[in-house]
Amino acid sequence: MDRDDLRSMLERLSLGELAVDEVAEAVARLPYSDLGFARVDHHRHVRQGMPEAVYAPGKSPEQCAAIVAELLQAGTGPVLLTRANHAQARAALDRCPGATLTDVDATGTLQLLTWRAAPHRGRRVAVVTAGTADLPVARECLGTLAAYGLDAALVADCGVAGLHRLLAAADEVTAAEAVVVVAGMEGALASVVAGLTAAPVIAVPTSVGYGSSLEGITALLAMHASCAPGVVVVGIDNGYGAACALARVLR
Amino acid sequence: MDRDDLRSMLERLSLGELAVDEVAEAVARLPYSDLGFARVDHHRHVRQGMPEAVYAPGKSPEQCAAIVAELLQAGTGPVLLTRANHAQARAALDRCPGATLTDVDATGTLQLLTWRAAPHRGRRVAVVTAGTADLPVARECLGTLAAYGLDAALVADCGVAGLHRLLAAADEVTAAEAVVVVAGMEGALASVVAGLTAAPVIAVPTSVGYGSSLEGITALLAMHASCAPGVVVVGIDNGYGAACALARVLR
Amino acid sequence: MDRDDLRSMLERLSLGELAVDEVAEAVARLPYSDLGFARVDHHRHVRQGMPEAVYAPGKSPEQCAAIVAELLQAGTGPVLLTRANHAQARAALDRCPGATLTDVDATGTLQLLTWRAAPHRGRRVAVVTAGTADLPVARECLGTLAAYGLDAALVADCGVAGLHRLLAAADEVTAAEAVVVVAGMEGALASVVAGLTAAPVIAVPTSVGYGSSLEGITALLAMHASCAPGVVVVGIDNGYGAACALARVLR
Amino acid sequence: MDRDDLRSMLERLSLGELAVDEVAEAVARLPYSDLGFARVDHHRHVRQGMPEAVYAPGKSPEQCAAIVAELLQAGTGPVLLTRANHAQARAALDRCPGATLTDVDATGTLQLLTWRAAPHRGRRVAVVTAGTADLPVARECLGTLAAYGLDAALVADCGVAGLHRLLAAADEVTAAEAVVVVAGMEGALASVVAGLTAAPVIAVPTSVGYGSSLEGITALLAMHASCAPGVVVVGIDNGYGAACALARVLR
Amino acid sequence: MDRDDLRSMLERLSLGELAVDEVAEAVARLPYSDLGFARVDHHRHVRQGMPEAVYAPGKSPEQCAAIVAELLQAGTGPVLLTRANHAQARAALDRCPGATLTDVDATGTLQLLTWRAAPHRGRRVAVVTAGTADLPVARECLGTLAAYGLDAALVADCGVAGLHRLLAAADEVTAAEAVVVVAGMEGALASVVAGLTAAPVIAVPTSVGYGSSLEGITALLAMHASCAPGVVVVGIDNGYGAACALARVLR
Amino acid sequence: MDRDDLRSMLERLSLGELAVDEVAEAVARLPYSDLGFARVDHHRHVRQGMPEAVYAPGKSPEQCAAIVAELLQAGTGPVLLTRANHAQARAALDRCPGATLTDVDATGTLQLLTWRAAPHRGRRVAVVTAGTADLPVARECLGTLAAYGLDAALVADCGVAGLHRLLAAADEVTAAEAVVVVAGMEGALASVVAGLTAAPVIAVPTSVGYGSSLEGITALLAMHASCAPGVVVVGIDNGYGAACALARVLR
Amino acid sequence: MDRDDLRSMLERLSLGELAVDEVAEAVARLPYSDLGFARVDHHRHVRQGMPEAVYAPGKSPEQCAAIVAELLQAGTGPVLLTRANHAQARAALDRCPGATLTDVDATGTLQLLTWRAAPHRGRRVAVVTAGTADLPVARECLGTLAAYGLDAALVADCGVAGLHRLLAAADEVTAAEAVVVVAGMEGALASVVAGLTAAPVIAVPTSVGYGSSLEGITALLAMHASCAPGVVVVGIDNGYGAACALARVLR
Amino acid sequence: MDRDDLRSMLERLSLGELAVDEVAEAVARLPYSDLGFARVDHHRHVRQGMPEAVYAPGKSPEQCAAIVAELLQAGTGPVLLTRANHAQARAALDRCPGATLTDVDATGTLQLLTWRAAPHRGRRVAVVTAGTADLPVARECLGTLAAYGLDAALVADCGVAGLHRLLAAADEVTAAEAVVVVAGMEGALASVVAGLTAAPVIAVPTSVGYGSSLEGITALLAMHASCAPGVVVVGIDNGYGAACALARVLR
Repeated sequence: MDRDDLRSMLERLSLGELAVDEVAEAVARLPYSDLGFARVDHHRHVRQGMPEAVYAPGKSPEQCAAIVAELLQAGTGPVLLTRANHAQARAALDRCPGATLTDVDATGTLQLLTWRAAPHRGRRVAVVTAGTADLPVARECLGTLAAYGLDAALVADCGVAGLHRLLAAADEVTAAEAVVVVAGMEGALASVVAGLTAAPVIAVPTSVGYGSSLEGITALLAMHASCAPGVVVVGIDNGYGAACALARVLR
Repeated sequence: MDRDDLRSMLERLSLGELAVDEVAEAVARLPYSDLGFARVDHHRHVRQGMPEAVYAPGKSPEQCAAIVAELLQAGTGPVLLTRANHAQARAALDRCPGATLTDVDATGTLQLLTWRAAPHRGRRVAVVTAGTADLPVARECLGTLAAYGLDAALVADCGVAGLHRLLAAADEVTAAEAVVVVAGMEGALASVVAGLTAAPVIAVPTSVGYGSSLEGITALLAMHASCAPGVVVVGIDNGYGAACALARVLR
Repeated sequence: MDRDDLRSMLERLSLGELAVDEVAEAVARLPYSDLGFARVDHHRHVRQGMPEAVYAPGKSPEQCAAIVAELLQAGTGPVLLTRANHAQARAALDRCPGATLTDVDATGTLQLLTWRAAPHRGRRVAVVTAGTADLPVARECLGTLAAYGLDAALVADCGVAGLHRLLAAADEVTAAEAVVVVAGMEGALASVVAGLTAAPVIAVPTSVGYGSSLEGITALLAMHASCAPGVVVVGIDNGYGAACALARVLR
Repeated sequence: MDRDDLRSMLERLSLGELAVDEVAEAVARLPYSDLGFARVDHHRHVRQGMPEAVYAPGKSPEQCAAIVAELLQAGTGPVLLTRANHAQARAALDRCPGATLTDVDATGTLQLLTWRAAPHRGRRVAVVTAGTADLPVARECLGTLAAYGLDAALVADCGVAGLHRLLAAADEVTAAEAVVVVAGMEGALASVVAGLTAAPVIAVPTSVGYGSSLEGITALLAMHASCAPGVVVVGIDNGYGAACALARVLR
Repeated sequence: MDRDDLRSMLERLSLGELAVDEVAEAVARLPYSDLGFARVDHHRHVRQGMPEAVYAPGKSPEQCAAIVAELLQAGTGPVLLTRANHAQARAALDRCPGATLTDVDATGTLQLLTWRAAPHRGRRVAVVTAGTADLPVARECLGTLAAYGLDAALVADCGVAGLHRLLAAADEVTAAEAVVVVAGMEGALASVVAGLTAAPVIAVPTSVGYGSSLEGITALLAMHASCAPGVVVVGIDNGYGAACALARVLR
Repeated sequence: MDRDDLRSMLERLSLGELAVDEVAEAVARLPYSDLGFARVDHHRHVRQGMPEAVYAPGKSPEQCAAIVAELLQAGTGPVLLTRANHAQARAALDRCPGATLTDVDATGTLQLLTWRAAPHRGRRVAVVTAGTADLPVARECLGTLAAYGLDAALVADCGVAGLHRLLAAADEVTAAEAVVVVAGMEGALASVVAGLTAAPVIAVPTSVGYGSSLEGITALLAMHASCAPGVVVVGIDNGYGAACALARVLR
Repeated sequence: MDRDDLRSMLERLSLGELAVDEVAEAVARLPYSDLGFARVDHHRHVRQGMPEAVYAPGKSPEQCAAIVAELLQAGTGPVLLTRANHAQARAALDRCPGATLTDVDATGTLQLLTWRAAPHRGRRVAVVTAGTADLPVARECLGTLAAYGLDAALVADCGVAGLHRLLAAADEVTAAEAVVVVAGMEGALASVVAGLTAAPVIAVPTSVGYGSSLEGITALLAMHASCAPGVVVVGIDNGYGAACALARVLR
Repeated sequence: MDRDDLRSMLERLSLGELAVDEVAEAVARLPYSDLGFARVDHHRHVRQGMPEAVYAPGKSPEQCAAIVAELLQAGTGPVLLTRANHAQARAALDRCPGATLTDVDATGTLQLLTWRAAPHRGRRVAVVTAGTADLPVARECLGTLAAYGLDAALVADCGVAGLHRLLAAADEVTAAEAVVVVAGMEGALASVVAGLTAAPVIAVPTSVGYGSSLEGITALLAMHASCAPGVVVVGIDNGYGAACALARVLR
């Protein structure tokens, strides 16, 4: 129910076509359905312009399948199932065939499933990673971007210790309308990339590294303390969130 | 020196108009001047599309004035002096009159000075704050946005404990092309705002609060852990950085 | 032994009905039994008005069963076995049948067992959760409340990023005499709920989320830094503690 | 505007007494006034049942005075100015005489001002402190409780290292309908008090102590990890918050 | 080689019974044997008065057995193998029979093995625990004390939330020449015990608890911030270290 | 009132020499006096064998003087005023002359005052410091020890980076019945000293150092993680606590 | 392409032997090959003088083998595969036989593989460890040093609690041109070693220890806070990094 | 006393030229003098090859002057007084004229004083800083290097967000035998520099930055997590320590 619906309803009330009680109840009955274990929000797409995403961890395969089915039936936009294990993915695919699958960790244990991805929108986006180990996070980002109709270029393995590799990729980076930087360890790549382009730079710290990396805290803090102005940061390993942020930028 | 300059230089070398040594030296002599205590980067504007900003803390009043003067002379774009105390501001103004001043803390001790702000660009931007105490950070953000030619609306004092106040401002928020959310304490405002709009939401954690606020760490972590997808975060109290990020988005 | 008992004992001493040694020993022999591995406190119920609870982790199945049996035999009030795994639950049920079982994690591995729950007391209580993944903590809270005779309404999946869902449930929340808010990630729900009601709000941070959630530390800090006055907080994932706190409030 | 107002407005619309546009505007114009620097929320009292409180730090003396004056004029309930320094207190008193003053730190630098405290309600409440140094936080709590009409007993200096002192005060503690425990250092007093009473126990960690006290973090964590079930905790040094929580409990 | 040996050697050098080179080499060749993977220190017993202890984790079963055998052969005092898993324990027992075994975790996975424990010395020592879950750490402490010839009384399950239980055990505690307090969660027991006795109190924080217990950090900090003067603390879960400290006290 | 007093009182009750009410009141009236702002505990000396200590910070000069005077009048043992500033020290001395003063920081701002120190007891104790900057903490320890009648040797400036200096002092260290090690920075001195002696070693981490020293946290953690068994640790900069711990050891 | 190549290319351009486009492209085509999942950097050896190292975790066995093969084919220097599990090691060995294997954890699960180690260079290097449990990290360091042609002496089990053992090894330590100190727990060995030698001392904190060791954070902080000037530190458990640092020192 | 002295002493003992007691005493009397408040170590220069440094904070001006005088009299090498305030510097200069002064903070409050700096040794060293605010730490490093006879080039203001500036300085960096990198904020400069040179790279994290910089912790962690192998790190703001480390490298 948007503002026009409300106004129209008020007008019908003023015309005697609706009763006061009906209007009160209509306002109270907000437009989501109730599956018992999760309130599915059909209108988030309208409100936020984002695909519906179901976060699989902690849900049973049956719950995953049921929520996906409900979302597909209720709306017409993209639907994602994120970080699904094999049982969850299978249950959702069995009930709702036709999804695209993306591996989002090194061992293929977790997957991103996409139904009804938006058509390609022809925007130029780059996802840059520091090392091979950052690829799973990058893939979750790329898969989510695809659901939004954004077909990003992957520029992998550009750690700052080998500057010439990043410089070789500089054209690709500077040509992009927006850049996602995925980096663990010291996360320095975000600062360097932001120094090369005036486009939005969204930094994703990853938990890649050991010991002093503190499972991504070091990269998160370093990206926030970046000497390059205008870098923005999302949560650790949150490739999905970076894609959503980028989609907000390129609406 | 941009790529065209390089190409043209190589062509002149091939034509015998330049010597190999000249070209080597030209490449080596990158285009910044050297004041002895700080390398002033004339070309950052070209590369990043951002105004030049001088971070005052730790510099003497004379250093502040000299760097500002050099930047004004070398380029034509906006120049900012950020977080200047009274002595620094006075020295810079004496040497380079004509700046706009913005108080960026509650007691008027620190100021933002802007020379040659860009003309207004007519974009709709909102800066939303949770409480009165967040205003200094918001003002630094607003002042920096103004230097970019972005005239943002300030929607102040919308803490989530008084939802009806935020809802009253919802139109202003949802109409904006991009929103900056400035909040300390638990930083929950970012999640709520991001649930109201599909536009980019840039969250600035502030050090407002005491005890468990941990001088902004709590808000920073909470904003990163936001349940609303696509929120991006800058550093604690970094209103300047949020403005730069927003300017990247609205290039 | 309460104060009246003591006084009566002193009087009997003064009347010569008791010997000094008897009184000294009686004071020394406090009323708990000793099972060898855990001192079972029969009088806690009187002193605190709370059911007896046995925390299963780190105890053998036999120990769990023996302590539960001792408590059931010694008193007449409710007895709980919290966070029991299957072996512990089975051992306790074999020795002491008739318990109610509640799953308290997503995979059904851990359970809450309740013997002799108090009769329903007809108080209006609400347990509100931010997301589906917070349900196990909510269930532990609900199960414990039931042992106290408190039959709480579960208002699930009301994350602040979808405000209209929370607003739809606002009646249920504001009608409650006390509210428990269960939320992970940024924990913002506690602030928003506390802004809607003047009743006691007990916030339970959960370890739901990844990366920047820091296994619940982020939510705990955020809830403490809440901009809504009068929010109180219990430990991370401590649904049992929240129920005990609420029972203290509604004695 | 409460629900009845809304309903009555809808009825008048249905009766043709109001135009659609009027109703739309009325809903949009939420009932707060705008002072320019802080939105004063007249309806919070209705919604939350709490006095209005103005947090002084970061506001100018003039701002403090203006907000207090606005609140006093707009409503009829208690108004507090918290953590005011001398200039802020004087400005507020000059404009709005008649406040009660409470010193809330050891040196008398910060004060709590109360206008129109609620009449005493005759509830039995105890505020227990571990040491003399915790008194300022306790005083802020007591002063705020007084504004709510709650006249609490202060039981000071009951650190757990001198158990007999706490036991001597046990009657006072167990007789209370609710207890606030104010303690720094290791914060153990909360666990011990919660073991003595079945009433609500609200723990306030203080920043008292040095070195390993970590400015209150140690006490906050320890109170959350309390072995006594049902202890709830507010933020570090947050005597005001504890009073608000207690007022929620004793509505 | 002690000081007398050195002096005697110098005297023999002065008498011509030893050559300069011999003396130099003797000083250089310190009295330990070299097994290749661990330097076994035969003289630590003399120097420190402590039994030899081998920390099993990270060593192969064969290494454990070899080091224990070497220590038993080289000296005459107690030898301990700490935190051995079953394979390590079996290998050591096969090669060196006759050890006493103590379970040092709840599941019996890790064990403490003691060879040649010192004879009982008749000192009065108490080990007090807060809860049943602290018993494994207490057992490691008790087992190590036994190797020193110290037969400690175990006073279990005396958490501060049930003060009357601790008070019932107060005689046992105050009669001891030294007390070890083993407690997780908020670790408040150390403060209370130290308030009851003037004897040395050695506090062992344990990792018992969840969420806000931070795996023992909370208890460690709380014990250090204790309001009872003269409490000393060892590392988290370090029952072995507490026993060594107590043995230093009761030499 | 000790156990014999209680027994005697019960006997007199049984003999009719005391009334039940008298006994009840006597038990209730625990033996401390109440100055209004701090409960002075006269019996702590009996219970704990420790001098009375007043912690000055946060108390007014008048409060300091009043509490000291009360303690001197009520008992006969040592009385300390710790960390007093000049105003507090003067007020206490004016009212209660005859104290010994010890500077406990580098600038002479804070002092320890001792009245009625116990006579020397002839025990051998050593206080070892790593650097000159650790001396204030060592002096607070030495001054407190003196109040207990313990005359400790100060072995200063023995940092582990100059091992030969510590080895030169080894005789003094190994001859002591107990050793206090005062060290900031990495705190390694505790491990080395504990390797040289079998006597009790009490480690005091200090906040000496900058940057990575984290104001003493680094030394505290390092001392707890010591590879030398049996090191015990007190809080950061807590020279007073170390002296109390040592006095417990040498009762 | 090094500077001479560039100069020669420019000269050929000036001589008309190369076209402007060719030069532009040559500069752009930096000399690495692209395997699709990882950009292999052939020129790092020239630029940094270091062997090529492939970090195995997070890569499939096939990826490990392919990258190693590419590196061996493209260059002539040493190639390392670090922290390989058995499957990764086997895949790499099957495709590229002839590697040296080093166990780098206690259980033989992870291995370091070295192809084409540099010939021994005859430098004197020592790797000193505090305890047996530090050996895996030391072995990774030794194995990497061997790839550089550096044959280091291992001086194991020299914890500071047994100073005489370290002193016995002092000759070996002081004779070395550079020393790596590998230590967990409190990491004090680095300070002591740095006090014995004027050579470079590279400290490697390890995650050895439990409880207060905080998985190496304690040792890392302690090594940074070392009282011995000139100690440098690498990341936790980073034996590989220490070897690379030492190789930089001994180029 | 070095090994030759010892040997010669033993020989004279064997020849009867010395008595056993004399030798014992000589060994015991280690060669430092005792000023009462600090043991001055004359032989550290021999043992470590480093100048003597006196850390001024926490010492009185008189103590500073006395220790410096003692060191100058006892030895012949360089002597430094680090982080001296004006009073300390004046006292030392009054007693020991002829020092070189270096400002080591932005406001000229703290100074480094050097007596008898070593003659220049002609080594090529570079100190690279990220920003102007890092200069004080760099100056302390440069001043200390000068005392060692090392005349380093300062390459200032090379933050990674302006890569072309660093690249312009690349020749200077790659030509150096060793490089010190001084950087706050995210500390990324260390990784980038280490990718440009195979020489030793010593990273100094500084406390420059605000909010998320955590007073240097962020930079310290990031430098340790560097993706460039072989970076070594010293403590926060420890320019003195970096110089000592570099001097060890270039002995």
